[in-house]
Amino acid sequence: MQSSVLFSSKPAWVRAQYSTSPVDTNPMAATVPGPGPGPKWAQKTITLPPHRRGCHLVTSQILKEIRPDLSEFKCGLAHLFLQHTSASLTINENYDSDVRDDTETFLNKIVPEGRSAPWKHTLEGPDDMPAHIKSSMFGCALTVPITDGKLNMGTWQGIWLCEHRDAPTARKVVVTLNGI
Amino acid sequence: MQSSVLFSSKPAWVRAQYSTSPVDTNPMAATVPGPGPGPKWAQKTITLPPHRRGCHLVTSQILKEIRPDLSEFKCGLAHLFLQHTSASLTINENYDSDVRDDTETFLNKIVPEGRSAPWKHTLEGPDDMPAHIKSSMFGCALTVPITDGKLNMGTWQGIWLCEHRDAPTARKVVVTLNGI
Amino acid sequence: MQSSVLFSSKPAWVRAQYSTSPVDTNPMAATVPGPGPGPKWAQKTITLPPHRRGCHLVTSQILKEIRPDLSEFKCGLAHLFLQHTSASLTINENYDSDVRDDTETFLNKIVPEGRSAPWKHTLEGPDDMPAHIKSSMFGCALTVPITDGKLNMGTWQGIWLCEHRDAPTARKVVVTLNGI
Repeated sequence: MQSSVLFSSKPAWVRAQYSTSPVDTNPMAATVPGPGPGPKWAQKTITLPPHRRGCHLVTSQILKEIRPDLSEFKCGLAHLFLQHTSASLTINENYDSDVRDDTETFLNKIVPEGRSAPWKHTLEGPDDMPAHIKSSMFGCALTVPITDGKLNMGTWQGIWLCEHRDAPTARKVVVTLNGI
Repeated sequence: MQSSVLFSSKPAWVRAQYSTSPVDTNPMAATVPGPGPGPKWAQKTITLPPHRRGCHLVTSQILKEIRPDLSEFKCGLAHLFLQHTSASLTINENYDSDVRDDTETFLNKIVPEGRSAPWKHTLEGPDDMPAHIKSSMFGCALTVPITDGKLNMGTWQGIWLCEHRDAPTARKVVVTLNGI
Repeated sequence: MQSSVLFSSKPAWVRAQYSTSPVDTNPMAATVPGPGPGPKWAQKTITLPPHRRGCHLVTSQILKEIRPDLSEFKCGLAHLFLQHTSASLTINENYDSDVRDDTETFLNKIVPEGRSAPWKHTLEGPDDMPAHIKSSMFGCALTVPITDGKLNMGTWQGIWLCEHRDAPTARKVVVTLNGI
């Protein structure tokens, strides 16, 4: 039983509406008049292994964990939530590792560390307070559209884990998939 | 057939739950005891025309593309995903264009460009590496609540496209609407 | 009638799919073969009381407003949307108030204010334009996974309201809960 997803001319909406109504006169949505798959939710906590301080492309590591489930969604959203306050998730260039190195250079330049830094919170080491700030600058969560069972990112986009601490630590990511 | 959305005294929850159960005793949710519309998904890729380097208010350009479909959602979320790594989407002031100009001034001040910049990734031009950094600072995605068929932003909020490259380029945005 | 949520070995997906089909052979999803609860949406605007300029932990203030409804969701997403352009929401450390103070120090250092600042938009006071920039740096929205009726944040994570204006103002947050 396939979901009745409507494809129209480009730029096209992919639309789906679920209803138990035998007749649905809503003109904008494809309906599932009888039995058929409805909305799905899937949620899982994955662990990224320790990465050295810096920005790292982790798209394939994440896809390895979620691909079979992701492939079940025709249309939806994938939410990635890093459960930490001294690392971040961002989407950026997926090709040249220099872009990741330069971004790390930028973060270290913009957020001072060590004796010249004005931080009060120093108990957990000189890299800790800068790590917290960098985490809020880039954020700990991403939402990516799902289309035809895949993350619908642009050609040059990839998912980065930015590790802001000196001591490599395994990082947990709660992945939530929602769609049809 | 209307969805049974419950409105109560302020600050009110608008609640809806879909069930095929003839009797639903869940006290917190309005139910649809019989036939009725269920959750909807709509997804579309729109193209924003080239904008010069800087911050631009694009709320009306985006609404023009999605308004008819948006109006079908009583309650939900609209997700906008820019498929690029050298531009960004953000929500900020929608009235005075000086705010957009000053934000561009800030971005250029904070992310150095040209000979004084420490970047290794320079092959695509002096504006390219700064553009990648700015893209992660502001982010490439937005999620906005939908209420009564409209984006439920504050009075002074608008959607900005921030173009970080010198050469104006058309930019693709995957829009995903989900709700009831 | 309980939703058929499937728990498997760790790292486990929690999965649910809704269907009116009497037989569902999809091997990856637990199904609700007969009557049962379906997806739920809840949306509410809450008001955070005025906070002085700086970063504030507001997790408990927000939970107080949403906990009863949140507890109804087995799996889902909570979206928080600040309807303002001179404050921000971010997730960061929930224990040491020095982290919040240091983050405010950073923001004030990175975004100049007063006579040395290059801003054109000065009509609303010297703190206004910096406030707009800080709002886009940290963002006005958060999406947090819901698991077993709770926000599934890490041990040290909390929700911060960052007030970037000098004059304390009440701030509105549109909360949207979606899940099963």
